[in-house]
Amino acid sequence: MISFENDYNQGAHPEILKRLMETNREPLSGYGTDPYCENARKKILAACGCEGGEVHFLVGGTQTNAVVIDAMLQGYEGVVAADTGHVAVHEAGAVEFTGHKVLTVPHRDGKIAPKVLERYLAGFYQDENHEHMVFPGMVYISHPTEFGTLYTKQELEQLSQICRQYEIPLFLDGARLGYGLMSSGTDVTLPDIASLCDVFYIGGTKVGALCGEAVVFPRKAPRHFMTAVKQHGALLAKGRLLGIQFDTLFTDDLYFEISRHAIQMAEELKEVLRKKGSRFAWESPTNQQFVILEDEMLERLKKEVAVSFWEKADENHTTVRFATSWATESGDIRRLEELL
Amino acid sequence: MISFENDYNQGAHPEILKRLMETNREPLSGYGTDPYCENARKKILAACGCEGGEVHFLVGGTQTNAVVIDAMLQGYEGVVAADTGHVAVHEAGAVEFTGHKVLTVPHRDGKIAPKVLERYLAGFYQDENHEHMVFPGMVYISHPTEFGTLYTKQELEQLSQICRQYEIPLFLDGARLGYGLMSSGTDVTLPDIASLCDVFYIGGTKVGALCGEAVVFPRKAPRHFMTAVKQHGALLAKGRLLGIQFDTLFTDDLYFEISRHAIQMAEELKEVLRKKGSRFAWESPTNQQFVILEDEMLERLKKEVAVSFWEKADENHTTVRFATSWATESGDIRRLEELL
Amino acid sequence: MISFENDYNQGAHPEILKRLMETNREPLSGYGTDPYCENARKKILAACGCEGGEVHFLVGGTQTNAVVIDAMLQGYEGVVAADTGHVAVHEAGAVEFTGHKVLTVPHRDGKIAPKVLERYLAGFYQDENHEHMVFPGMVYISHPTEFGTLYTKQELEQLSQICRQYEIPLFLDGARLGYGLMSSGTDVTLPDIASLCDVFYIGGTKVGALCGEAVVFPRKAPRHFMTAVKQHGALLAKGRLLGIQFDTLFTDDLYFEISRHAIQMAEELKEVLRKKGSRFAWESPTNQQFVILEDEMLERLKKEVAVSFWEKADENHTTVRFATSWATESGDIRRLEELL
Amino acid sequence: MISFENDYNQGAHPEILKRLMETNREPLSGYGTDPYCENARKKILAACGCEGGEVHFLVGGTQTNAVVIDAMLQGYEGVVAADTGHVAVHEAGAVEFTGHKVLTVPHRDGKIAPKVLERYLAGFYQDENHEHMVFPGMVYISHPTEFGTLYTKQELEQLSQICRQYEIPLFLDGARLGYGLMSSGTDVTLPDIASLCDVFYIGGTKVGALCGEAVVFPRKAPRHFMTAVKQHGALLAKGRLLGIQFDTLFTDDLYFEISRHAIQMAEELKEVLRKKGSRFAWESPTNQQFVILEDEMLERLKKEVAVSFWEKADENHTTVRFATSWATESGDIRRLEELL
Repeated sequence: MISFENDYNQGAHPEILKRLMETNREPLSGYGTDPYCENARKKILAACGCEGGEVHFLVGGTQTNAVVIDAMLQGYEGVVAADTGHVAVHEAGAVEFTGHKVLTVPHRDGKIAPKVLERYLAGFYQDENHEHMVFPGMVYISHPTEFGTLYTKQELEQLSQICRQYEIPLFLDGARLGYGLMSSGTDVTLPDIASLCDVFYIGGTKVGALCGEAVVFPRKAPRHFMTAVKQHGALLAKGRLLGIQFDTLFTDDLYFEISRHAIQMAEELKEVLRKKGSRFAWESPTNQQFVILEDEMLERLKKEVAVSFWEKADENHTTVRFATSWATESGDIRRLEELL
Repeated sequence: MISFENDYNQGAHPEILKRLMETNREPLSGYGTDPYCENARKKILAACGCEGGEVHFLVGGTQTNAVVIDAMLQGYEGVVAADTGHVAVHEAGAVEFTGHKVLTVPHRDGKIAPKVLERYLAGFYQDENHEHMVFPGMVYISHPTEFGTLYTKQELEQLSQICRQYEIPLFLDGARLGYGLMSSGTDVTLPDIASLCDVFYIGGTKVGALCGEAVVFPRKAPRHFMTAVKQHGALLAKGRLLGIQFDTLFTDDLYFEISRHAIQMAEELKEVLRKKGSRFAWESPTNQQFVILEDEMLERLKKEVAVSFWEKADENHTTVRFATSWATESGDIRRLEELL
Repeated sequence: MISFENDYNQGAHPEILKRLMETNREPLSGYGTDPYCENARKKILAACGCEGGEVHFLVGGTQTNAVVIDAMLQGYEGVVAADTGHVAVHEAGAVEFTGHKVLTVPHRDGKIAPKVLERYLAGFYQDENHEHMVFPGMVYISHPTEFGTLYTKQELEQLSQICRQYEIPLFLDGARLGYGLMSSGTDVTLPDIASLCDVFYIGGTKVGALCGEAVVFPRKAPRHFMTAVKQHGALLAKGRLLGIQFDTLFTDDLYFEISRHAIQMAEELKEVLRKKGSRFAWESPTNQQFVILEDEMLERLKKEVAVSFWEKADENHTTVRFATSWATESGDIRRLEELL
Repeated sequence: MISFENDYNQGAHPEILKRLMETNREPLSGYGTDPYCENARKKILAACGCEGGEVHFLVGGTQTNAVVIDAMLQGYEGVVAADTGHVAVHEAGAVEFTGHKVLTVPHRDGKIAPKVLERYLAGFYQDENHEHMVFPGMVYISHPTEFGTLYTKQELEQLSQICRQYEIPLFLDGARLGYGLMSSGTDVTLPDIASLCDVFYIGGTKVGALCGEAVVFPRKAPRHFMTAVKQHGALLAKGRLLGIQFDTLFTDDLYFEISRHAIQMAEELKEVLRKKGSRFAWESPTNQQFVILEDEMLERLKKEVAVSFWEKADENHTTVRFATSWATESGDIRRLEELL
């Protein structure tokens, strides 16, 4: 059985486990105050080119989205997201649970088009009844998106400019950020993101860690953010578990190496799928590939290959997702080729 | 430098890391659906003597308290706790964040005395204005308590009976449950707890795991509890991280062995402290010892020994906490003896 | 200046003020326990044909929606509404403030088509990821809708049946219920609503009262609903203010008489507007009429007639809302006719 | 039957009803934008000596407390209150419902002593674990308190100074403010309150109105406070109902006249009770008197006099509350005298 089910179905990159073993007996203070957390913070800020910023470590993606959004919004504000955004659809209402509405706009390939955002914000303030409505207090984008697609630098610049004009923060969900940065076609760098966004996170769970997301505030975190994290039940006692992992990921560019490998595997995968005549639901330049398969073929494949159900494409076809990760090997792809 | 700072300042028990290494390349489905989670659940239910129950894995203690309490209360209800209870004091208002009041009653050695609970509940319903007040919808106790103390079986039986009379669940916070169960003086077993409580958790973070708490519903979990967990941002994508750890902890009684070791170390520690004439702030039969030290002595000690500040005892004395864990060694205690 | 701005821009029906004067010196207990509240409840239940039900009085519409929805949903559930529904758009996120998502479906003339609801609910449970999503726990409809339109009895029956099949309550927002019941074309009666819905409210604020909405649970209110009302800050100390008003409204059919009058005025208004060649944005059988006016005409009109801005129709036209109420007089309409 | 049950058991002062009648047919815009609201705001600010401030009208006391506290706190903050404070005990958890903890300190005669507050705040920041606790973000006092007692000007000055030192707002719940201001012994004026508090409200419901509380921000309201009010379900469509009432109350000093009358009635009541040998539970200088009655006497009295149960004083005695209001007459007191 080979698995393209998702990018979090195996453990951690071996280098991470090795470091956890090596440091296991060191007594370290809790809650993110240990030197590994401190080192990781410095390395991340250096990689982002924003040495004056702040980094906080959280455990998972939905948690991170809810904590960051709640901490940065005023009570009467909501967060603007694409209607396909993770916060809008697949987080069991974690944002609403904190009292804030997710204000959706129609997506284009999983993205918010700058024009769509502009029109939404302008329209809101033109509406004579807007004081009876939820104020847009923040913009949420994911990069890569839930569709595996990427914003261009120009799009990010435009979104950022619109947010600054309306004085609301731009938040980038980087659950799979490494794959976006290492995609061959992208012109977006980590320092670009740090300069254009007001807060973003560098995903660990889906990029080789056991768990963990690094939230970067390129300038300043909200006041007493640590207490807000605790209040959300998101403060890890053994903060070292996150610190050691991110220290490892940001030593010798491991984070980028892991990402580059997965992208290369995705490219090989795409080639094989294309060669075999598979149809892609849409073009994705990252580690997730969305493929329309005949149901018969899918049934046959599932005996030996794990993929994710995405949606029914039509009566006889299903769109499925193939994902690659640090753990994908060329052999997996050759084996798939034989099976197709 | 030796450390008695707390029971979560070192990594994980080596057996846990070993199993994480061994299973690292196995592709497993996410969110707690993998076979390690399944095995861990079965072993835990067997140890609790409630095979028909349900187990859910969460990441940390404050998170677990907030999720469980919110999931089991009606909107108009609050949770009754000792005024020293962790949920009342040291969780940054995580319970209130979910909309529920923590209703405090005066503690006795960190515990809720059955009579105090009975008087509180009877008084509530006798108050003619009680429909304008928060209904007591649940009782929260910790075992061991924040003071390291333990309930007797009789006390638990009485609390349980009162809760059943008022038809409200009894929730036991077992962040350090192992130490309570392995304490030499206790008459309370894990099956006792499963039979007397409506929900409780078996703490991992403070008993040898990297992270993780196992919530046990001896009979039935609230409907769609997994979705509630997700909504609170508490659902781990790589659920395996929790499953493998608890599967290891409940194989060959490792959880109890870890706990027994820490208790033995605490007994040795107590003896040394007593021999050296230290005063105890109160008697604790578990792995946390609360000792009143002269400030001068404390300053001197702190250069070589890490302990936790608890509170100022008087102008020249401070109460500090010594904690033992799986990682404490007899050598640490002999070294302390020399320093005292 | 004549006003069609809305149906709440004048005080209360004179009969209501008269009764407030007459009862002013009677000492009555607070919080809805007085005999006027009791009488009003009995008369309302009789009018609804559900004598075994319960009635609670609240102050305003948004408040009522938030309290009812929050009291009837489980924590992990959201409420399904049309994307044009008041709870989805114009309540400043009052539902999300209570922690629940508003799950929107596309409207048809402001209504939820039974097929749309069925497809939504079936689709939700067919989605393999639905445990990571907000469960649909209730259906919210307004009758009349925000567009002034009405459900047919058949549509209500179908919606009710779908809700019962999925075991979720159907909630009808009747902020303007009287106008719906007295509309000439409707086949829906108050007992129909009581039999098909699980909770609904009879709007007072917009149908002749100073303030007040009567929430009807045709069978049973959620447990301790009064405490939930208090928790939401919605319990009026001088409950008499609501009791006396609703007692008056449901004595000698005043509620229906007020509604019938407004409908008759709306019919006269429509005729005048049609005669003058005005275009209607859509057909409304109730007391709100949505008319597309040339901007020039609108500017001229606004000097003597108050109407509500609805939306820009195109570059030179604006959709405005005309509303009638207990206070509208034939003279107002004749005056409008002269001005058009 | 005569009633001293509370100060909200009769309707409104006749002048208020008269003005509601007189203005009933005027078409006015909704949500507090009408000229009566505007006039009332100006008159209130003038009476407070803070013409540059802002006034918002809400419907009831619990609602006002919840909206104001939630709007002024950061997410990680709670409100400090006396353990007898209305927000702590008798609001069904309305503050916790908004996600904030009520942090209680021991009361003295229903008041927070400045020293107690100072010690609490200093202690909080000295606690090494305070980042894991709820930050005190606001101080709530009631004046008169729930015990009918009053702060002196010096006490208010001290509380105000402490709050300013810690940069947290001081909020005064004035549900019965008029009675405090007209009490013979007080040295506190309305301008004093406006200068020492950051927000307070002037209660209408318990001082002669049908309903309504006027929230005064002597300097500036939180941004988009109106939207926060709507979000809490607290925005009245017919805002005129509140505007006309407060415009009337602040015309020709009616608010103070009503209060002065009730205080005079309370003085007469006290004299009668004293003459008859009744024991007072504590000394109250305002319109609420707390009297310890023999149970036999109470049973007899209740046949002709309505009073409120406060608490059991001992086996044979009960503490009851007598309240006076605009509607109390000297005849009521003479009748009571005969019955005692």
